[in-house]
Amino acid sequence: MKTLVIISHPEIMESGSQQYLLSSIPENKDITVHHLESIYPDFNIDVKKEQNLLKEYDRIVFQFPFYWYSAPALLKKWQDDVLADGFAYGKKGKALVGKEFGLVISIGVRKEEYQPGGREGFSIDELMKPFQAMALKTGMEFLKMLPIFQFSYLTENQKMNLLIRYQQYLTREKEDSLAVREKWFIEELKSTDSSKLNDGNQFVLNQAIEFIEENRDTIDELKIVLDQMN
Amino acid sequence: MKTLVIISHPEIMESGSQQYLLSSIPENKDITVHHLESIYPDFNIDVKKEQNLLKEYDRIVFQFPFYWYSAPALLKKWQDDVLADGFAYGKKGKALVGKEFGLVISIGVRKEEYQPGGREGFSIDELMKPFQAMALKTGMEFLKMLPIFQFSYLTENQKMNLLIRYQQYLTREKEDSLAVREKWFIEELKSTDSSKLNDGNQFVLNQAIEFIEENRDTIDELKIVLDQMN
Repeated sequence: MKTLVIISHPEIMESGSQQYLLSSIPENKDITVHHLESIYPDFNIDVKKEQNLLKEYDRIVFQFPFYWYSAPALLKKWQDDVLADGFAYGKKGKALVGKEFGLVISIGVRKEEYQPGGREGFSIDELMKPFQAMALKTGMEFLKMLPIFQFSYLTENQKMNLLIRYQQYLTREKEDSLAVREKWFIEELKSTDSSKLNDGNQFVLNQAIEFIEENRDTIDELKIVLDQMN
Repeated sequence: MKTLVIISHPEIMESGSQQYLLSSIPENKDITVHHLESIYPDFNIDVKKEQNLLKEYDRIVFQFPFYWYSAPALLKKWQDDVLADGFAYGKKGKALVGKEFGLVISIGVRKEEYQPGGREGFSIDELMKPFQAMALKTGMEFLKMLPIFQFSYLTENQKMNLLIRYQQYLTREKEDSLAVREKWFIEELKSTDSSKLNDGNQFVLNQAIEFIEENRDTIDELKIVLDQMN
């Protein structure tokens, strides 16, 4: 699966959360990071080039800081220009049909404020409806969002957790079954560069992989037995 | 009451609805039209100038065509730049508190599609939550919106009706009482240039004003009687 991460952030070098997320993206994976403000600082978007780029990917992710309850202006310009009639919608506009669409949003205010009675008054789900409508119109499947609230207040542990969720968000097949989650973890563990671990950690890593695979075999066998009983 | 109409439309000269609405704005009223694409074609917004402009008005109206379930990109840039911390929100950001905020949105698809099961899937109310949240954050009072569906399919009568609603949207005091609506109509009728009417129409115009004023007097007298009876 190939994933295109379209980032819009006018001050990405100064953003702790963006730098942290970016540093974790593995280079050997089918992930392309596409930072709009670096490519189009003057807001003149190369529409044909962007449209051709989109066609190559299975999952499109918009990643941005929450500016006035939406994306920064350049991502809106990108939408207005690139997602044209005849390409993204309309009778001949089928280029995005069947792709997956995700949102990674960094938010400076705590989650509790995004509800009736809270300082922001509306939930993230409510505020993101325009993007959900965009996915509907273009025939893309809307994925569960990954909102990141107050990154700078996260503990080291919470940040590590976020990294795993982020990597999964970009790379893991959509299905949420235990089998898919296991498969993803095993692949991640196997691709870990074990030459950088000491002997003890190498042993733990291999044991972990073995345990997960053995459990999976047992579960699969039990399922066959159950099927035969029906 | 002074009203600032901030229009964002990349092709305003080609837009039938925008030209129709603009042609109706009376010059002697406290209305300023501010078309962003004419002033900032390169997306470089003069923040100080815009902030000073905003301070002069009681009612701020965003007027735009619906692009991807929101405003065109330049209006988003305007929001991102002009509505800064310390001006529009935050501890010292009280510049917009108490003003009124309105939305005039022209929409190419018919209203029925904006609901669950319709082609667009979501209502205009749902899709406009980010603007409602902006009004909340900046302390502005959110006015009922004026969405215009499929302008080009309207009959001449419907267009005339729209013009009256639009003029009221820009100029009428918020209160929806019969007295306020009457007052607005009488002022509009009185400011009609009667030299351009023939004698018959002049007579009708004057009669209309007299009737409304007489009715108002009768109603007011009845109210006094009722008050005395209590």
